[in-house]
Amino acid sequence: MTLPPTPQPATGSVIAAYDSPTMHVAGLLGTEITATDPDRAIIEPWAASMRGPILDVGSGTGRWTGHLASMGYQIFGLEPSGRLIEHARTRYPAVDFRQGSIADLAGDASRWSGILAWYSVIHLGPDELPEALMILRSGLSAGGSLLMSFFAGPRIAAFQHPVATAYRWPTATMLQLVTAAGFAVQTHRTAQTNVHAYISAVASPARH
Amino acid sequence: MTLPPTPQPATGSVIAAYDSPTMHVAGLLGTEITATDPDRAIIEPWAASMRGPILDVGSGTGRWTGHLASMGYQIFGLEPSGRLIEHARTRYPAVDFRQGSIADLAGDASRWSGILAWYSVIHLGPDELPEALMILRSGLSAGGSLLMSFFAGPRIAAFQHPVATAYRWPTATMLQLVTAAGFAVQTHRTAQTNVHAYISAVASPARH
Repeated sequence: MTLPPTPQPATGSVIAAYDSPTMHVAGLLGTEITATDPDRAIIEPWAASMRGPILDVGSGTGRWTGHLASMGYQIFGLEPSGRLIEHARTRYPAVDFRQGSIADLAGDASRWSGILAWYSVIHLGPDELPEALMILRSGLSAGGSLLMSFFAGPRIAAFQHPVATAYRWPTATMLQLVTAAGFAVQTHRTAQTNVHAYISAVASPARH
Repeated sequence: MTLPPTPQPATGSVIAAYDSPTMHVAGLLGTEITATDPDRAIIEPWAASMRGPILDVGSGTGRWTGHLASMGYQIFGLEPSGRLIEHARTRYPAVDFRQGSIADLAGDASRWSGILAWYSVIHLGPDELPEALMILRSGLSAGGSLLMSFFAGPRIAAFQHPVATAYRWPTATMLQLVTAAGFAVQTHRTAQTNVHAYISAVASPARH
């Protein structure tokens, strides 16, 4: 793959956040896939249906790359943060991780059977995501498949992700963008996760 | 503290799930508080307002106990799972963790300035939670404070938590239960967390 050394300016601050030594990023993202990880039921059957090499875009700590490699799939990791690449190579030394971003795939001749983008496009805003999806499309072989996840919401909105600003997208909007980028959507699902609440309360005088 | 050796039957299956050697529980729960953990903004000011010892009920891997102890607070961990107690003691050897459940506090003479129950009551159903809250109330000194978190939802409902069955509660219902147990609610907040979505899409034939 062609890997230009300088990331795009907009992406640079996100990479810097993940690269920051004060960010306990491995603890935040996790380095392992646990036995009960609910995403396994989505990712593993998808990987099983691939007939050629898979690219894990934004592979982070390498947890999914390493997990799928351990299951026997031919998979490579691509990750712009040098610090995360180091984490991934240390934890999964037999897996091939390359430093680079989605933009770096634009001029690349490789054609993948599958591209996994698991919460990898969350930091891309409305100015960046449509093009990123087209680049991902161009990196797939004919009939190749993209499996991507994102944060859904009632409207496009930036929010403070623990590491760097991220975006929510209405699922319908994301489906339109994916289709416009040259994909035929196979399945999609939007799942309400837990709503977190807390209460602080002072002990009232005991009643007799 | 008085710590009966046998947990209650209903709680037993939850403890067994956390104790299971096939459950990668430390990876699931985390053993550290990261620099960007949003719960720090809730828990740290609360801890700072305590004037005496704090009990971390359901201390799990000891992450909050150890974090608050490292900040200089006098804090003890109480956790029914022996496996989690081992994790906590290994990671935070200078902190005092004791094996036991909320029920074990019922006959205990200790009176705490603060009780932290951070997602510790999530596995207690409608038959168990009201009594557990009353036991927590009885464990506080006059003016002592409870800080608890839970999963909110439109109605009381069981759901499959990664480790064991957990329950959602309407915030209004939880506020009533807390008040009925002898507390005056100071603050509460219910926050919508991220809605997770995914799409799988096949590359359409290239358009020319």
